[in-house]
Amino acid sequence: MVKKISLLGATGSIGTQTLDIIQSNPEKFKLVSFSAGKNIDKVRRIISHFRPEIVSVLFKEDAHKLQNEFPSTRFLHGKEGLIIVAAQSGADMLVNAVIGSVGLEPTLHAIREGITIAIANKETLVAAGDIVISEAKKYNVELLPVDSEHSALFQSMNGENPKTVSRLILTASGGSFRDLTREQLKDVTVEQALAHPNWSMGNKLTIDSATMMNKGLEVIEAHHLFNLPYEQIDCLLHKESIIHSMVEFEDTSVMAQLGSPDMRVPIQYAMTYPVRIPMQNAKPLRLEDIGTLHFEKMDYTRFKALSLAYTAGKEGGTMPAVMNAANEIAVQLFMDGKIPFIQIEEIVERMMDQHQTIATPNLDVILEIDSAIRKMVYDRVK
Amino acid sequence: MVKKISLLGATGSIGTQTLDIIQSNPEKFKLVSFSAGKNIDKVRRIISHFRPEIVSVLFKEDAHKLQNEFPSTRFLHGKEGLIIVAAQSGADMLVNAVIGSVGLEPTLHAIREGITIAIANKETLVAAGDIVISEAKKYNVELLPVDSEHSALFQSMNGENPKTVSRLILTASGGSFRDLTREQLKDVTVEQALAHPNWSMGNKLTIDSATMMNKGLEVIEAHHLFNLPYEQIDCLLHKESIIHSMVEFEDTSVMAQLGSPDMRVPIQYAMTYPVRIPMQNAKPLRLEDIGTLHFEKMDYTRFKALSLAYTAGKEGGTMPAVMNAANEIAVQLFMDGKIPFIQIEEIVERMMDQHQTIATPNLDVILEIDSAIRKMVYDRVK
Repeated sequence: MVKKISLLGATGSIGTQTLDIIQSNPEKFKLVSFSAGKNIDKVRRIISHFRPEIVSVLFKEDAHKLQNEFPSTRFLHGKEGLIIVAAQSGADMLVNAVIGSVGLEPTLHAIREGITIAIANKETLVAAGDIVISEAKKYNVELLPVDSEHSALFQSMNGENPKTVSRLILTASGGSFRDLTREQLKDVTVEQALAHPNWSMGNKLTIDSATMMNKGLEVIEAHHLFNLPYEQIDCLLHKESIIHSMVEFEDTSVMAQLGSPDMRVPIQYAMTYPVRIPMQNAKPLRLEDIGTLHFEKMDYTRFKALSLAYTAGKEGGTMPAVMNAANEIAVQLFMDGKIPFIQIEEIVERMMDQHQTIATPNLDVILEIDSAIRKMVYDRVK
Repeated sequence: MVKKISLLGATGSIGTQTLDIIQSNPEKFKLVSFSAGKNIDKVRRIISHFRPEIVSVLFKEDAHKLQNEFPSTRFLHGKEGLIIVAAQSGADMLVNAVIGSVGLEPTLHAIREGITIAIANKETLVAAGDIVISEAKKYNVELLPVDSEHSALFQSMNGENPKTVSRLILTASGGSFRDLTREQLKDVTVEQALAHPNWSMGNKLTIDSATMMNKGLEVIEAHHLFNLPYEQIDCLLHKESIIHSMVEFEDTSVMAQLGSPDMRVPIQYAMTYPVRIPMQNAKPLRLEDIGTLHFEKMDYTRFKALSLAYTAGKEGGTMPAVMNAANEIAVQLFMDGKIPFIQIEEIVERMMDQHQTIATPNLDVILEIDSAIRKMVYDRVK
């Protein structure tokens, strides 16, 4: 049976690789809808190839323009467009690959329609994990991780009783600046930050890797996806990124998933779960060619953003949303050349310090705080 | 519910550790019967502690002596005793931890009684894998691996479709002589051979590790347990023995089980499968303390015994039994100081060269060839 796929964030890194998997397996997947931002040339190419029924873009004018060019496709725009693509396009599965908390509302709408979700959009779980998970339970919807770390954890728990898990061990490459001291971080440039040693990813994710905030977001995501307290979630420096993450069980056995760095593997696993299918044009892992794997205790002082994430996660309530919103804007400001690298985490810390946590916020409260924090960070720098 | 355990080879390394697990979990396991060889002092201690119903030892005289000391226990001896302990003692599970193909007949009897088997006795599967597996299928009996490598493979396949496995990767420490050339092997002593770098094991197994025949036996065991052709079973040098083995799937994902070297973990997993229970007094794995894991292509010229095992396995029929019998006696002769280390594999190779394979032997043929080969090897050296 062909699985009908809707895809949020089709022109990004994960989106492009998702399309690659759909294209390689036409007997398994059909793209029925997708969203994109401003990259209209790429949108045109995707439409020409996949002929989806519904497409949403960021701007109204682009939607109108495209409607004239492709009369048999329905075009939408903005936030409402995202929600219709996610929840109203007749898909069996939503692949949520947008960046940032903009993915939150479409995710909730898809859950309420009973659509299985392959989730690459970690900010959604960070900002409103409690709400998303409780809605997914209520509607009996599976949230399948796409992040390589969470996919590794998920695969390592396959067939296991979750109650016998004693520890999740998220591996971290250390990002672009892993060998620099905090002092040396003061002078780094955007170009240096964007050069990730192992993975080819989108810009936001690459910067988050350099600050280690990405690992922090992943810790919070893991807490929600696997329902474990933060005390049982550890991070381990592993510069080769070959072991994608590990699960320790109460008998001291550790299960791990390994592979060459290729995001298509976890994406495809989420799309085909619970089965596996061959990966087209993939490079099999040969540990004899790699030779050596290194592991090092995580340095939570050096990687301050990761400490902030643990603090926000343990505090709970609105605090992770505050951290996430501040980080999203601070990263944008850094990429725009408005602030130095080291200030990303300073901004996040300041916003967290000033925030009075609301313990059990509803969605409206979270969205309100999310946009208030974004505005505050922008205003401070202007 | 308490699981009733019968244990073949109670005084050996695996046997002792199995008793440790039973002792630590009296609400889960009860020892109803066991076998041992000549270590009667240890047999006494085990009886005093566990109060089993049936005990078998190697010699008739020992059985008689013990019967007088412990009138409420039933004592047996020899081959028949092994069979009754394995199959006629009312156990729910047989832990087969004897060394050598002597474990074959008791295993088959237990299978025919529908008793689940935790199998550490790899020689049984090497000598008569086709027969054992087909009987286990016929009687719908589970064969649960105890070897750390096979347990790792088994755990890595948990919840997976076996048809999507592309490769089994058995890791090998390299044994006591991994850093010696073939030339240097000529002068090694029994004491040097018995000093395994990572694991504390019985003597036969330690010598088999030094020749790498142990990995060869494991390759054949894996072929039978997991029903995969030899072309899909690889060996990888990994001197730290932290990754206990790996399974590669057709999507290029590799699943692995890791842990500190502690045989109680795979023994307990087989005994509690499909659940896990906490491991008493175990040392959790901390990769940050280990720091580095090394991997190296297997050198099949350096480790000739491993090549012989692949040859025997691919040839099939009676050939693996020939290889195993020749190896068992050659190892004994080496430990007795009768032959140099390097001659172990020379004897195995010569016996294999001289043998005319019978493609689908029955059990009698295998047992006959097994004892004929043993006699031939002894006679040659005398």
